[in-house]
Formats: sequence, structure tokens, C-alpha cells
Amino acid sequence: MLFERIESEGLAHYSYIIGDRTQAIVIDPRRDCDIYIQKAREAGCRIAHILETHRHEDFVVGSIELSVKTGAQIWHADADLNYKYGTAVQDGQEWRVGRFKIEAVETPGHTTGSMSYLLYDPDKTPWVVFTGDTLFAGGVGRTDLLGTDRIEQMSGYLYDSIFTSILSLNDGVIVCPAHGSGSVCAESIAERTWTTVGLERKFNPMLQFDDRETFIKNVGKELERPPYFKKMEKLNVRGPPLLSSLQRPAALSPLDFEERMEDSFVLDTRFELEFGAAHVPGALSIWEQGLASFVGWFVPYTKRIILVPRTEDPLPALTQLYRMGYDDVAGFLPGGMVAWHMSGRPSERIETMTVQELCTRIDDKEGTWILDVRGKGEIAQNGAIPGAHNIHLTQLPEAINDVPKDRTVFIFCGSGLRSMTAASLLKRNGWDNVKVVLGGLAGWSSSTCPLDQTP
Amino acid sequence: MLFERIESEGLAHYSYIIGDRTQAIVIDPRRDCDIYIQKAREAGCRIAHILETHRHEDFVVGSIELSVKTGAQIWHADADLNYKYGTAVQDGQEWRVGRFKIEAVETPGHTTGSMSYLLYDPDKTPWVVFTGDTLFAGGVGRTDLLGTDRIEQMSGYLYDSIFTSILSLNDGVIVCPAHGSGSVCAESIAERTWTTVGLERKFNPMLQFDDRETFIKNVGKELERPPYFKKMEKLNVRGPPLLSSLQRPAALSPLDFEERMEDSFVLDTRFELEFGAAHVPGALSIWEQGLASFVGWFVPYTKRIILVPRTEDPLPALTQLYRMGYDDVAGFLPGGMVAWHMSGRPSERIETMTVQELCTRIDDKEGTWILDVRGKGEIAQNGAIPGAHNIHLTQLPEAINDVPKDRTVFIFCGSGLRSMTAASLLKRNGWDNVKVVLGGLAGWSSSTCPLDQTP
Amino acid sequence: MLFERIESEGLAHYSYIIGDRTQAIVIDPRRDCDIYIQKAREAGCRIAHILETHRHEDFVVGSIELSVKTGAQIWHADADLNYKYGTAVQDGQEWRVGRFKIEAVETPGHTTGSMSYLLYDPDKTPWVVFTGDTLFAGGVGRTDLLGTDRIEQMSGYLYDSIFTSILSLNDGVIVCPAHGSGSVCAESIAERTWTTVGLERKFNPMLQFDDRETFIKNVGKELERPPYFKKMEKLNVRGPPLLSSLQRPAALSPLDFEERMEDSFVLDTRFELEFGAAHVPGALSIWEQGLASFVGWFVPYTKRIILVPRTEDPLPALTQLYRMGYDDVAGFLPGGMVAWHMSGRPSERIETMTVQELCTRIDDKEGTWILDVRGKGEIAQNGAIPGAHNIHLTQLPEAINDVPKDRTVFIFCGSGLRSMTAASLLKRNGWDNVKVVLGGLAGWSSSTCPLDQTP
Amino acid sequence: MLFERIESEGLAHYSYIIGDRTQAIVIDPRRDCDIYIQKAREAGCRIAHILETHRHEDFVVGSIELSVKTGAQIWHADADLNYKYGTAVQDGQEWRVGRFKIEAVETPGHTTGSMSYLLYDPDKTPWVVFTGDTLFAGGVGRTDLLGTDRIEQMSGYLYDSIFTSILSLNDGVIVCPAHGSGSVCAESIAERTWTTVGLERKFNPMLQFDDRETFIKNVGKELERPPYFKKMEKLNVRGPPLLSSLQRPAALSPLDFEERMEDSFVLDTRFELEFGAAHVPGALSIWEQGLASFVGWFVPYTKRIILVPRTEDPLPALTQLYRMGYDDVAGFLPGGMVAWHMSGRPSERIETMTVQELCTRIDDKEGTWILDVRGKGEIAQNGAIPGAHNIHLTQLPEAINDVPKDRTVFIFCGSGLRSMTAASLLKRNGWDNVKVVLGGLAGWSSSTCPLDQTP
Repeated sequence: MLFERIESEGLAHYSYIIGDRTQAIVIDPRRDCDIYIQKAREAGCRIAHILETHRHEDFVVGSIELSVKTGAQIWHADADLNYKYGTAVQDGQEWRVGRFKIEAVETPGHTTGSMSYLLYDPDKTPWVVFTGDTLFAGGVGRTDLLGTDRIEQMSGYLYDSIFTSILSLNDGVIVCPAHGSGSVCAESIAERTWTTVGLERKFNPMLQFDDRETFIKNVGKELERPPYFKKMEKLNVRGPPLLSSLQRPAALSPLDFEERMEDSFVLDTRFELEFGAAHVPGALSIWEQGLASFVGWFVPYTKRIILVPRTEDPLPALTQLYRMGYDDVAGFLPGGMVAWHMSGRPSERIETMTVQELCTRIDDKEGTWILDVRGKGEIAQNGAIPGAHNIHLTQLPEAINDVPKDRTVFIFCGSGLRSMTAASLLKRNGWDNVKVVLGGLAGWSSSTCPLDQTP
Repeated sequence: MLFERIESEGLAHYSYIIGDRTQAIVIDPRRDCDIYIQKAREAGCRIAHILETHRHEDFVVGSIELSVKTGAQIWHADADLNYKYGTAVQDGQEWRVGRFKIEAVETPGHTTGSMSYLLYDPDKTPWVVFTGDTLFAGGVGRTDLLGTDRIEQMSGYLYDSIFTSILSLNDGVIVCPAHGSGSVCAESIAERTWTTVGLERKFNPMLQFDDRETFIKNVGKELERPPYFKKMEKLNVRGPPLLSSLQRPAALSPLDFEERMEDSFVLDTRFELEFGAAHVPGALSIWEQGLASFVGWFVPYTKRIILVPRTEDPLPALTQLYRMGYDDVAGFLPGGMVAWHMSGRPSERIETMTVQELCTRIDDKEGTWILDVRGKGEIAQNGAIPGAHNIHLTQLPEAINDVPKDRTVFIFCGSGLRSMTAASLLKRNGWDNVKVVLGGLAGWSSSTCPLDQTP
Repeated sequence: MLFERIESEGLAHYSYIIGDRTQAIVIDPRRDCDIYIQKAREAGCRIAHILETHRHEDFVVGSIELSVKTGAQIWHADADLNYKYGTAVQDGQEWRVGRFKIEAVETPGHTTGSMSYLLYDPDKTPWVVFTGDTLFAGGVGRTDLLGTDRIEQMSGYLYDSIFTSILSLNDGVIVCPAHGSGSVCAESIAERTWTTVGLERKFNPMLQFDDRETFIKNVGKELERPPYFKKMEKLNVRGPPLLSSLQRPAALSPLDFEERMEDSFVLDTRFELEFGAAHVPGALSIWEQGLASFVGWFVPYTKRIILVPRTEDPLPALTQLYRMGYDDVAGFLPGGMVAWHMSGRPSERIETMTVQELCTRIDDKEGTWILDVRGKGEIAQNGAIPGAHNIHLTQLPEAINDVPKDRTVFIFCGSGLRSMTAASLLKRNGWDNVKVVLGGLAGWSSSTCPLDQTP
Repeated sequence: MLFERIESEGLAHYSYIIGDRTQAIVIDPRRDCDIYIQKAREAGCRIAHILETHRHEDFVVGSIELSVKTGAQIWHADADLNYKYGTAVQDGQEWRVGRFKIEAVETPGHTTGSMSYLLYDPDKTPWVVFTGDTLFAGGVGRTDLLGTDRIEQMSGYLYDSIFTSILSLNDGVIVCPAHGSGSVCAESIAERTWTTVGLERKFNPMLQFDDRETFIKNVGKELERPPYFKKMEKLNVRGPPLLSSLQRPAALSPLDFEERMEDSFVLDTRFELEFGAAHVPGALSIWEQGLASFVGWFVPYTKRIILVPRTEDPLPALTQLYRMGYDDVAGFLPGGMVAWHMSGRPSERIETMTVQELCTRIDDKEGTWILDVRGKGEIAQNGAIPGAHNIHLTQLPEAINDVPKDRTVFIFCGSGLRSMTAASLLKRNGWDNVKVVLGGLAGWSSSTCPLDQTP
């Protein structure tokens, strides 16, 4: 029997493949879908069905890609949307996977037509429930995607779906959601990488509310909403283009790279230290593993992208970009900044400093302005540097004018990575005097510098 | 956070690696242990501890191998045995893995000092229990290893361990045993590849008995006991030799192979069809994936082995043999039987036939003698061919004289693979007139041949 | 600097990638072209140009496939053909690869517009010459492809090309042809896997003829001409379909496989022993590594193919089939014959025998009829079994009625592999009494059986 | 037939494997020798013999390692040394590799007992000559290793070996040396990655001298002699320890890393930009690909090493270190500098600047002091920055006091990589005011800055 979870890091997205005898089913596949084909082949299975739990808004779903390559049939939830492909799932519908059975269970709330899928073992015991964005380890799906006015209604649906359909299962049933810790699809997800009905019933803070009212009041919040959600939603209903139809990005010489800079967006996916030390003028810094989380906030879909990749191999960055629907990547700089400098082209710098250096300056109120780009939750949990100004990284484009141009801006986050993204954003927009604090709050609080702990 | 199960197919053995921040722990490692080192490295962890749940008897444990390569500390259970390495675990002992905690829980029954390990998440919630050979999906550990006279005592211990220590956990706690379906360490293991306390409490047939007495009566059986258990037990207490200390098997030309045949055991790991069609005279047939299950029954540890591998690559077979403690493999035939035949050397055949052919002969009581080499359980579940004589494959060496030499012996099993092992055993011992039924009972019962269904 | 030869086994086809600084050139790419992209990426190069030495007739060229994936420009030789893609190369045309230069040299003879390419090192020394099918290690290109009436003319062209353009180079220049030993594009190719102008000048038997006349007389022969050459020629001028446009073959259950058998050609790519032991009724046997050499002779391009692959993985066979332009492969049997038999379906056998067994029967002139399916060259070189009838495997379809139906036909070749192909062909056409001799002539002549040595 | 060159980058070392039928021979294996075993296995061969061309001085030879793993016999040249393993080769000695033959040819000069090996094809044609460090593409072996007083004698031997033994071969014979471009074993090696007797006879500048005298005068020079040569020589005669006997380096947390710093040498193998941006105080910078060339000059063999690797994976750096005989690597920092900073530990910086920035400062003779760490050959070929002071990187430890401490030192090389090594060396020794010029002379000469071209 084949039962595997395929994780897309960065997105913290979980997809699943279940196979038995010669048949397999995939749930919520990602766009770079060869992994499912390979797993199925190794197990001697053919992927016969693709099940979507809901219309995803945080990544490009791979159903069409996988279907074209395997002939598998696509089943989508959210039947009320105007899908251009596949067939709508009905509540109670069943599929066979060898000796196992899968059954659709309507669980609206996160979207109007969200589906969960219940897997029975050969003895007909309910064994695993695939909950999509309905229930996570330690969290529940967000209910604000249809707009502020429908939050209450959707939160009520979610309550019913979880308390009636999911929690009625045996505590031993394994819960397989569509996301793990780090996703933008829920306020917070626990570190339990596998979970069960019993663990969630007892330890999920969102399931501890006494009644439907309290649940709605606590869950029904408006959360930050990435601008790319709209693009994803459209793509996933219409069906995204096949990866094989995209032009492969070219390896560009420094000369060719420079020529393309005029009509392209320069994205640099190296780590913060390298970017700070030298980068192509005007480049935006997002470290490779941070692409899924941040590219959608800062890079317009209308722009062609050219890449300065982390290593000689641009594939990891491309994979992330394609998962987010950035299909127009024209090229990359294979020799990196060494080639750039050897061609005699000038680069720019963003200065970095250690926490110790910031610590000695912190009382110079005149000269320094400290910018904290972390989220509210992190600040509440880990504390802050006294006197720092908080603008969450994702809000920086909107709030950029709150940052003074006439003072030295010291930027910090949790580790130093997001700070460099912020610094590069500021620099692109004319702020010249920005410095990144290496190690971020983690480094700060490991040293002897003063820390504001919120009560 | 790193949490992965590493499966050794054939053995149906499960080992686990848990990592967080820079530390990792491995539970019950296998001998070919590079997989753990690789997983740890990818996660940026160092393997600091190796935990054994008990003294294994069905495979060579990899603790020393892994410890030598990583510097990790070895913790063994069954402290009363005279271990030559590592440190004995105490009940209640704790280890940290980054933000997670692991705690030892004494669960005797399968062996006298078997340990389970309970993993707590950062919020101190009991999350996963590693049960070794104490509790499986749908089964429990066997209790007959210390001898017939102690079965009742050990079964009582096992009852207490499971009902007191394991079942007292929340139904949502995930259960991670040392074996999956197909192991020789339990009478039967369910197809649920992941399970939980709740699922076992409700669906494990061994946990449905009302009281300790009934449990002991039903669980406390004597099971078949492979002759290699003794060797494994000794090796695992003394500590097996390092793989790097073994001489690598040589690629042998047909001439060299023939010369070594005199003082070696010829093991042929190809599938049944190829073996039947042509094999080196005197070879024993065990198909590659069947090695872990059967080699220990038929190949003496005192014999040097030479291999006819399934493909050009002998590594899969070698890996299986080393896991079973067969360290003296002198060489293999890289060009296979094509090279053998091209060198002008004679080969032998074992005839095969389809179920249709057997079906037409079944009434010829004089000429034919049908040998069923399946186990009792399979026969009970799937039925039998009328008039067939049953000798379980593993019992064939002892019962070989029950098979007539003067009649054509038609051998079948579930699929045809074990039948060829049986046929080659008979042939090595002087039975010339043996035929293997392709497809076995599966094929038989899919066609229109008569079937004895036990009530 | 990057300089690598990519070998396509089976076809004995050689392609080349040359790269320096950020640029690369590929010569005569194969259809499964990811290997070039990977090599270029590892070297930090972009494939800018694709050079074809001539219109290939023995495999599907990968120029379009590679161009679509990289944006490289295609340059084809044989400018007089009506190409649907790329640009025609001119004699003397030059390309830069970093600090290196490549120059086109017209070398007609094998085809009318064959090109060689001369690579100069940074010091402008002629260093390597890519000779396509003009000059091989120990052989020259065949000149009979345009028809019998033009052999003399084309052979004259070939003489001029080799003696004037190639042999005028320094003896130390490295010769890189489009094929190695085993190709159908030359009568014979030597075992030197790398060669030079000097080695060919001195040791190539075709270059030892005194004058143009004698060369033409000796080289200008009509050779066997595979029926698929026509298909390849058309495809390579028109441009073959992209691999990503093909439907992926499905993993078929035995039931599905059986259903597709009616409208499909069953191709079994396992080795001779397994095929002989049991195969799907009506299947043709071509062992995996023999596909490139033989599939084009026996499988019509108009038929849909279904596969019984050598292992669980059908990819090696698919790769071979796609290289030969067999794009319509509908599916494969993932579980192999074990699954087939377990589903209760009947199989068929072809008997095999050792050389020893044939040896004892060879004087029974009445009952036995020995068929030798090797080529004339092999027979001349290695001898034959007394009394054997020779029909070359590729001629068997035409000469099939020369084989008697009323006698036992013993088939042999060099090793036993081609014999099984012949046996399966005969069986498909109604010959029931065929037996394959294992080890073939190699086995025969290694034992003490009588051998006819041609003087 | 198997014939492959295995390249060890960094060392620019070439080793070879030749195989046919079931046998293979390896020439001058490297220490990480699994690659040969894998190649042999894929070709169905067993490595029977290991041939050394001479006692290597620039890397640890892998003969013992490979012999222990395969049982192959070791044949060493330089029979007059006191070898602790293997057997001395005799001039004219022969080995069979399937249908091919290899013959030893005495070619002293680089060392006293250097051997070349001549490979004959099955037709007995001399086909390939393995020349060790006797003859390279575009160069010859150095003759100064036995000391100044024997240079003339050894150069005379080398002349005889090349002109008598090698150049007597047909121009078409392929020449396979032990090194390619970039090695320390010859003054200069050409970019031809494959070469022949004919190409060397005509284009190798060292073979253009009229007579023995002139050859000796021109070749017999004293070259730079890395301090590690002595260590390698001893190891290679005594036989290096097995890799499996080394303790695997541990993944160290920042705390553990810091604790080990006291008794260890901190080696940072990241690129120049990252190192400059932030590094562990006191670390030496050698970028990963530069290890083979430079580690032996700067890191004493008596020191334990701890690593800051380029990526999460320390293996590439470890492989380089083990090839150079640095066996005592205690650990590495898996999370890199991000982890270091997050733990609150301080780091240091070395400033970098673009060529444009240096260009504007070049006339400030007071404040700036420009250090060029390239070799004489590079300077002659590519020119220099006016006013720069030249100390070759490898000579910096000896000449360090020639660098002023009271001025800003601008360091440049070809690209910026070696400059950072120099900067880190200076910094470790108390120079605080050092700056690295990005892009080095390549960048400088691609821009509009003034350049001194030597006539």
C-alpha cells in the first residue's frame, strides 16, 4: 500500500498520494507534479483520480498538469465556481483505490464548497481524513476570503463542518490537512507534523471554545491578504498553462543580463549576506526559501523576471516561482556576481551589522531609526527592541513613507533574512541609508542587549 | 522539524529519525545506515542518540554501525542481557531533541526488557509513542521467544504493558511500531500503514479481549521460529561487525564462478520464471524481495555464498543478506545466465505450467501429487486446490521425505514465487520431477478451476 | 572548457556538447535531450547552436526538441532537402564557443550535403573534427542510401571528402564520428572508442586502397536497409513531434492489458529466458537493449504498442522506442508476468535448450532443422554449426516460408537473444515447434561440439 | 568496452578506468574511489589491477583504498622508494584487460622511476598512452622535485623519455596525462582537454626545442614548491589511512563550534562575498573550489580543522580536504552564519569594493597601497594595475611584512576569490585595513581603468 505526503516547502503545502494494487489517487497536487508520477510508478500504480479539497488561493494547483501527463480524472470542490476543467465532486461520492475506499464529505467554511475526503481501510474502518484548509494541526482555516461581510456566515459553516463532520470521527483517525506550519492559509499551525482527531479535539486552541457563537467570534477575523490570492484564484478556476509550454529561462552573460534589465524585474534569491555584500543595481532580495512567502507581495505579475540565483542552478527558484504563477522568467545569471564583477560591471552594497554593534548605538535617538519588519504575533511572542518602529514586511510598500529618509535606518526581523528584503525594497525606492542587523531578534535576545517583553 | 519513518522492505522493519534544531535521534536503525546520516544532514542535524526498543531477533541492528559513523551514543533496552556496547536505558529516562522531549517507558512482554519511547511536542503534549515489537497495527508482539514455559508469564507482562502504559494515552496519540505488515515478529499486522492509540483500541483484534486471562490465552501461542533468530540474537547483543570491514564480493567470470561453486552455496535471486528457464546446477532460488523472509531458513550461516543476482547490480541482494547477517558473500555472476551459457556451461531447468494446464490434470490422481507450500493462515483465508498436500515452505527441509519421488510434483503457493524456492530445494535434494504452477492460488481462483473453501 | 560525448546505447549513436565561458554548441542531439541541458547548466553555459552533420536515417534527431527547450538555433546540413525548420549550413561557416571556433567543412558522400565540423582551440590549432557519418573508427559511411544507381557517384564524393578534407589534417587531430561500434550506418566500426586522423590513416581498412577507383569499388556496396529508414528520413526533414506532446503510457492491469491487445502490438522487452518461460500469447520478443537495432524491422509504425517491460520501470524501453519514432505506446504491464498469472490468465512458452542438448541431437537429420539467424559477417568470422540453415534475423519476415513447419526448428544466434526474437516471430506466424539454443554460437564453440570454420 | 577519464576538479587530476569483458584496470586512482567501483559495476567488470604512473606529490593516491574495497592488485612505479604496499612495475610488463593489452614503458624524468602505460587495441595497434606527469597537453612534467642539484640530470631523463619513448609512437596515438590545465605539477598546461602525440609534437612549446641541451636549459627550472608536497610524498609511499577509519565530522551548534575554536583551525569555504560580509572571527577564507590549490599552503597538517561550509552540505569541502591528506576535520557549522548570528555571536567583516571605486582612488598615492596576489605568468599575460605591489598569494605568509600596516591595502587577483584568501590571512595576522577588489583584473580590464601592459 502506498500512502505518502508530499511537502512543498516554502508554501508549507501538503499533498497526498494514496495507492493500492494498480490504482492511485492524488489529493491537491502541486504544479511540478513529476514526483507523484514517480511514486506511482515505483509502486506499480496508475494515477486514476485527482481530488481537490477546494479552490486554492496560495499556489497554482497541478491538477491539469498531472492529468495531461497521466490521463487521470480531475475532481474539483467548490462546484459553484465556473470551472473550466474537471468534474464537480458530490457530497458522499466514493472512489476505490485497490482495496481501500475514499468518500467525499462536504465541509464548507474556508470556501463555500470545501470538501474533505475520508479514507477507509480494507476492513471499512475510517482511517484518515484529508481536511484541506478546514482543519489544521493546532488551527483552522481562515474564513475571510469571501469578504468582511461574509466572515460570520463562513465561520459558522466552518464550526458546523468541524464539529459535526470531523469531530464525530474516532479520536484515532489521522488528520491530513493541506498545510503545515508556516502557511498563509491559517493564523497559526502547530509544530506537530502529523496529527489526529484526538489530538486536535484536545489541544487545538480553536476547538476549545464552548459554543458556535464563541467560535465564530474568535475565528471570524480578517487576516492579512496577499495581493497574489486574486491571481491564484483565477488561475486555479480557469486552469493554469502547462509547464512544458513555458519558454525555458536562458543562461545570460552579464552583457545580456544588463540588456534585459530595462524591461525586466531583477530578483536576487541569494542569502542576505551575499546580497548585502554586492548586488546588481536595483535588484530585489528574496532568499530562495522565502520566495513562496514573499514574492507575491512585491513582484507584479505583469513584469518579466530575470534571476540572480543562489547557486549555479536556477531550478529551485524557478520551481518556487512557477508554483506561485510567475511564468515569465526570461533568464538568469549563471556565473553569479563573480561573473558580473569580472565583466567590469559595478554593483551596489547594503551594509550589515551585528547585534553587538546596534546595541552600542541604541541610545543615539537622533541618528538612528530602528525598523522591525516582523509580524504582530512574533513581536507578542518574542519581544522587541526598545524604541523600534514596526511595519510588517508585507505592509512596507504601502507604509514606505513612514520610514524617514534623513536618518540611518537599522532594519531587523527574526534572523536577518526578511530585513534584507526590506532593505532592498527601501533602496529601490530611494532610501540610501539602510543597514541590516544580522541575526535579528534571535541574535539580539541571545546577547545581553535590552529587550521589551510585552506582558 | 524532522520526523521520518525509514522502511526496510522484505523485513517490513520500521525505524525512525526525529530531529529538531541541530539534534537528531534514531530509533532501531538498520545496518545499512547511511540513510539516517543523509536525512540528518539535509535537516542540518547531528545524530546524538540511538535508541533500541529491544534486542531484535529478525535482523542485524545498525546501532554500532551508525554510532561509529556519527559519534552518537547507543541506548539499549533489555538491560539484563550481557551487552558488549552502549548503555542500558532506565524506565523514565529522558532525552531532548531540540524543543521536543523523548521519554522511555518500560513495556516488557515481547522481551523481558522491551522499551517504548514517548515523544512530547514542544507544548509537552504526548504526541507519538514508539512501541517497538510491543504493539503493532492490528497485532501485538509474539511472546514465545523465551521458550514455551515462559509464554504465559510474558503474555501477562505484555497485557500489562499495553493496557496500562500504552492504552492510557490519549486516543489521538500516534503509534509507531518497529514492524509493518509482513513481519515475522507478529502473527498478523494490519494494512494500516500508520496508526493511533484510538484505532488500535477499537480495531486491533488482540485488544478486544475482556480480561488479562483471555488475552494471555489468545496471545500466548507458540509461533514458527526461524532458525536464524538465534544468530541475530547473539549478533545484536555482541554487536555485529562493521560493513566496511567485509570483503566486497567480486564480479566473477563463469569460469571463476564455477571454481568457487565447490566450497560455496549458490544463491539465485532472480524471479521464478528466469530461474525455472535456466539456472546454475544446484542453485537455490529465492527471489530478491523474498530474501529477508526466507534466506534464514535455508542457507546455513557457515557457508560462503556466491550470487546469481536479479540484474547486473548485486547491491539489492547484498543489502538484504547483510541485514540478515550473511556477511560472507564471495562473489557474483555479473553477466548473468547469458554469460554462463555463452561460456558453454550447461544449465538446468524447472518446468512451469499455467493454472489452466494443472486444471486439466487435476483428476489424474495417479500421476500427479500437488504440493501447497503456503501457511495455514493463507489456506484458511483463500482456500485450497482440492487434494493438495500442504507443507509450509519453511517446514519443507524437515518434512521433505513426505514428498514422493516417484510422481510428478506440482507445487503452488500464492503467486508462484515461493513455489520455485520449494522446487529448487527439492531438486537440490534429488527430486527430479517437480513443476511450478505460475500464478499460484491467486491465478487458480481467478480462473474457473475447482476450489476448496474452508468453512 | 566543456567537451563531452553523449552516447546513445543500442543505436551506438554519438552526439557531442562543446562549451566554453557561457556558450555551448551541441552536435547531432538525440531526442531525449535533457542530458545536454543538464551538462550545459553544470558548466554555466547556454546552448546557443545545434549543428546537424546530415539528415539522419537511423534515429529521430532531437534538434527541435532541444531548440524548443533552450532557444538554441538549429543548423542543418543537406540543404537541398526541403527542411521545415532551422537554417542550412554553408561550407566554411563559423561559430564561436567562448574562446574556441567551429568551422563547417562540406564532406558529401554519405548524403549529398553531409557536413563535418572542425573545432579549433584558442590558439587556432585544428583540434577535433566531427565527421558525422563520413568517417568512423575503422570504417566509412555507407553510400547506398540514394539508390543503387548513385552508389558509384556517392562513393566518389566520399573518397574526395575523406582524402581531401579530412586526411589533410594533422595526424594528431581527434576524429569524432556520429557512431561507434554496432551502428547500422556503416558496414563495420572498430573497437577504438576514440580515434584520430593518424590512427584512421594507418589502420582504417577502407583508407588503405590505392586510388579512387579501388575505393569506390570496395566501398560502393549495397547494404541491408532497414524498413524504418524511410520513416526516420521523413521525420527528420519535417521535424518530429515534441515528446511532451505524446500521451504518457498508462500502467495497465492484466484486464486492461488484455482488452487493449486486440488493437495493439504486444512487445515484450524482457530477456530471452523470461520470455521463453512465459509470455502473453502473441507477443514479440525483443530484449530491451536490442530495441534500437530490431524494433524497426518487425513492428509496423501504424500499430499502437503495449509493453511488457523488463523491470517495473518502462522508461528505458520507452526511451528506445521514442528514439526510433515509435510514439504511440499506449501502456504497459507494471506487475509483469507475475501479475498476469495471478490474474488467472494463460501464458505461452518457447522451449530453450543448452548447447550440450543440441549437440547430442545434431546427427538426427530427420527430426531437427537448425536455423542460424546471424549475419554473414559473423558466420565468416566465428564459424557455424554443421548443417545449419542461415536466414539473417532481419530477413526472416521475407524468408519465413523457407522454414519447415513439420520439423523441430532449433534456432541459434551469437548468444541466444536474437534467437528468441526469431522464435517469437515464427510462433506468431504459426510455427509451433521451435526451440532456442541458449548461449548461441559462443556457447557452442566454448564446448566440445563440432564447428564448421570457413577457410 | 569501458574507457573513461575521471577528473578531480581543483586538483586538475585525471585518472582513468579501462575495462573490457569482465576485467578492468584503474590508473592513478583518487582517494574517494567509489566512482571507479560504480563504473566497473555498470560495465559488468571487476577491477583487477591498479597502476600508478609515479609517486604523486600533489594529492593522496587512492590505490590502497580501492584495493581494500575490490581486492585489486596494486602496481607502483618509482621502485627505488621504500613502498609499504603493492608491487613494483617492471619496464615492459604487460596486463590484459579483456581483449586489450597494457604495457609498461619506463619514462623517468619527473621522478626517477616514472612509468607510462601503453594501451593496445584488440588488433594490437598502440592506441592510447597514459603518460602520468611525463607529458601533458602543451607542457611537460616538472623536474625539480629531487632538488636543485639534480634538475639537469632529471631534465635530461625527461628529454629521453619523451623524445625516445613517447614521440616514437604514431601521431594518432591518444595521450592521456595525469593532469589537465590548472595543476601544480607543470608550469602550464594547454586548454586542449584531450590530446594526441601529433598535436603535442607540433604544438607543445616544450617539444619545439632543437636538441637535448636547449630542452634541458628551458625545462630545467625550479618552480614554486608547495609545503604539502612533503606530506603527500610520505603518505603515498607509506600508504594513507582508509577513509572509513576517519571520524566523521560532527554538525556543531554555534556554541559547540565556538568551544572547539580554541584548539582548531577555522576554515571558511564560502565565496568571497559571503566571507567578506560576515565571518567567524579569525577564520581563513578559501572558497570551496580553491581548496585543492591553496589549503596546503596555509593550513598546517598538525591542526584540527573546523569548517564553515559553502552550503548545508560539507561533503564537497571534505572530499577536497581528504584528497589533500587533511584527515582531522572535527566538525562543521550546519546552519552557516545565519545560525551563528541568531545565536547572538559577533562576526567580523572584510570590506569589498568595485573596480570603479578603486579606479577613482588610484591616484591617492599616500592613502592607498595596492596588493596584487597573482602569479608572474598571469601578470605577464594580462597586465597589471599601475603602481600595484605583487606578492603571489602562496608567498604571502613569508613576505607578509612587506605589506604596510598603516595604510589601506587594496587587494586584487584575477577575479576576487584569491584576494579574499589574502585578506583573511592578513587579518588573522593583525592587518585591519584591508579591502578586496571585486572582479579583480578581469573586471578592471573590462572597464575604462588604466592598465600596465608588459611589452
